[in-house]
Amino acid sequence: MRLSRYFMPVAKETPADAQIVSHKLMLRAGLIRQTAAGIYAWLPLGQRVLRNIEQIVREEQDRAGAIELLMPTLQSADLWRQSGRYDAYGPEMLRIKDRHERELLYGPTNEEMITAIFRDSARSYRDLPRTLYHIQWKFRDEIRPRFGVMRGREFLMKDAYSFDMDEAGARHSYFEQLQAYIRTFRRLGVQAVPMKAASGPIGGDLSHEFIVLAPTGESEVFYDAAFEAEDWSSHRFERGDTAGLNAFFKRLTSVYAATDETHDEARWAEVPADRQRQGRGIEVGHIFYFGTKYSASMGMKVQGRDGAEVVPQMGSYGIGVSRLMGAIIEASHDDAGIIWPEAVAPYQVGLINMRADHAGCVAAADDIYAKLGGLAGGRVLYDDRDERGGAKFATMDLIGLPWQVVIGPKGLERGVVELKQRRTGEKQELSVESALARLAG
Amino acid sequence: MRLSRYFMPVAKETPADAQIVSHKLMLRAGLIRQTAAGIYAWLPLGQRVLRNIEQIVREEQDRAGAIELLMPTLQSADLWRQSGRYDAYGPEMLRIKDRHERELLYGPTNEEMITAIFRDSARSYRDLPRTLYHIQWKFRDEIRPRFGVMRGREFLMKDAYSFDMDEAGARHSYFEQLQAYIRTFRRLGVQAVPMKAASGPIGGDLSHEFIVLAPTGESEVFYDAAFEAEDWSSHRFERGDTAGLNAFFKRLTSVYAATDETHDEARWAEVPADRQRQGRGIEVGHIFYFGTKYSASMGMKVQGRDGAEVVPQMGSYGIGVSRLMGAIIEASHDDAGIIWPEAVAPYQVGLINMRADHAGCVAAADDIYAKLGGLAGGRVLYDDRDERGGAKFATMDLIGLPWQVVIGPKGLERGVVELKQRRTGEKQELSVESALARLAG
Repeated sequence: MRLSRYFMPVAKETPADAQIVSHKLMLRAGLIRQTAAGIYAWLPLGQRVLRNIEQIVREEQDRAGAIELLMPTLQSADLWRQSGRYDAYGPEMLRIKDRHERELLYGPTNEEMITAIFRDSARSYRDLPRTLYHIQWKFRDEIRPRFGVMRGREFLMKDAYSFDMDEAGARHSYFEQLQAYIRTFRRLGVQAVPMKAASGPIGGDLSHEFIVLAPTGESEVFYDAAFEAEDWSSHRFERGDTAGLNAFFKRLTSVYAATDETHDEARWAEVPADRQRQGRGIEVGHIFYFGTKYSASMGMKVQGRDGAEVVPQMGSYGIGVSRLMGAIIEASHDDAGIIWPEAVAPYQVGLINMRADHAGCVAAADDIYAKLGGLAGGRVLYDDRDERGGAKFATMDLIGLPWQVVIGPKGLERGVVELKQRRTGEKQELSVESALARLAG
Repeated sequence: MRLSRYFMPVAKETPADAQIVSHKLMLRAGLIRQTAAGIYAWLPLGQRVLRNIEQIVREEQDRAGAIELLMPTLQSADLWRQSGRYDAYGPEMLRIKDRHERELLYGPTNEEMITAIFRDSARSYRDLPRTLYHIQWKFRDEIRPRFGVMRGREFLMKDAYSFDMDEAGARHSYFEQLQAYIRTFRRLGVQAVPMKAASGPIGGDLSHEFIVLAPTGESEVFYDAAFEAEDWSSHRFERGDTAGLNAFFKRLTSVYAATDETHDEARWAEVPADRQRQGRGIEVGHIFYFGTKYSASMGMKVQGRDGAEVVPQMGSYGIGVSRLMGAIIEASHDDAGIIWPEAVAPYQVGLINMRADHAGCVAAADDIYAKLGGLAGGRVLYDDRDERGGAKFATMDLIGLPWQVVIGPKGLERGVVELKQRRTGEKQELSVESALARLAG
């Protein structure tokens, strides 16, 4: 994409109303624009990052055997009356009346709707287990929206729901999602630790929050460094292997990790001091096993193998897709701007022509753009504008693409271009061919 | 995907409340489930088709140089007061109050928001022309939602907005979108004719509706068969080539095509009788050039080349992404069910094992599934369930995948499988290797 034809409104000044670094950088780098309190438009660069995060989340859900569907944003109040949550939910639920005075709401989550959908089709044990998920906009009417997309009102969430015939099955489904989350966050380039959580308004007795460490996090977290040392996604066992499952959960819960809500000073004191990690954390995912809370209240039953009716065991599993963009920036930036992990970067390469008024530079940059476009599937942002070189460097550092290729007249005389890695700041002079070869790898 | 682990609730009976064939088939084939009046959940098969349609629309927008962003579903009423449309829009606009009694609405379209976003960043002629688009859920509170997703309330729309310095530029942007629409619908496998349209509530003086012919269409349409004979997407000229642009529009408007709203009996009578095409049509796209209607009312100005302030010329361009699914089915089905064009089919191949209780059939089908998965990128739906062959055939015909591969014990004895093309019904016996080779191509 040529910047001269793009829409990327970056700002030099830090917006006065932004308090945390991710919010500041998202506004400055032209990723988002606030359109109402806690509601944001995703500008072209931000839209691309959002889609990249969404796609990684999707691929890992699919890999875990979850099945994608798509539920609508608006739901009927009657559906929530079936579970009893309509009156219980409180003012964070955005309640709406349509032209016929029918009560609707903007879905803050989808336990009721997925239970109704699956209830109306599933007949017997042959239809279970299933985990169904969707990636859809949600709305929670926060009393004081702030921190940009970290605590917005309209937000994109992946929410999955599992249905099993018994508790052992449900715990296996929970385990599969937990594993998928570990893989998802690793691919996104963030370290997210699953921590024992209070179950809150969803209900249930087994629950983990996935927390990304960042100084601006909303809660204090405590964990044993042994957590980071272990590859939790390497555990594998078949459905029905209760011994394997129990061993996994025993191992998982033996390594200390808790938010301030569930923190236990006595157990914390047992963690060796050199392994104690404490800091602020941002919740980017939350998983729950809650048994028959919704299936029972909404009258879902299926026929078991022995012919008797069974009320399925359920769990739900959320990832804050739009919030993750803020969390990634909180965890990956420097004074000059964002440092995108390659997996989510809006473009992989920023190509800078230092001199738009220099025919040789223009020809060389156009040529490299054409060749990189071929190599990297159009994942190049080309600053072909007639601006000062210094301003172009600052903009590229701000928007944080993993690689920069700089074309200037002096380098061209010697037959070289500069390749800079954004994360390390490391610069190298290379021939055009070598630079292309490096970026193709 | 193995059907034994999928969620695809098909129904034998035709739902009583569905009046048109696409609605009936979408319910029966398990593509959608109504969750409130005019609001639908997209079940796994429907979600896949929706994503395929969306992706084709996106690729053709990108090819036309439009830039993707993503605006939120909820908008502030104040934004619509700037253009004067808040009070004018009528009861189809879903109006909402949040917990602080602030007025919001669920966006039915985005002229105001995109104008505000672009207005706050664009400074001069160097920032124009630009066409910006997004693909997002919209809501229109239809008084009587019906015909399934064809006239639903919550629907997915691609809407693009162009900003130009003058009318000639705006007409070129309009032309680019018109061309993109012709390519989009052709790739989707539907014949959509652009017809002169009344401009309606968006305003403006140049407008075309794109109409798919189908007996259940909402309006009567009239066009000259010469329309179908011409490749309208082959016209190409540069920005600034006013002569080329005018010649194109002259040619376009010289071939008669109109809806009942703009129908002109005198001009119709001039079309040779053997070229007169008349029938019912479904609107799947609508494009508008409306000049400065929104830029002027919302105070958007940029600096021209000569330093003087210019109010940009705008157009807007919509495609009903979710409605298209219904329109495609209306245009492509038979008594047995849906016939998906390959470009949008949820899976390319339906693999049927006739005998789940026959070890040889299971082994052969599993083997073909593994090989097809490798060839076709997981685009195979494998009916591995323990059901009668007849029921499996009926289901596959109903859901309309382009190809069926049938494995039975008698064929296996002779070393062959059956390959059936859904559209033609043509069946062939082939060796496994030949069938794989055919489907790989």
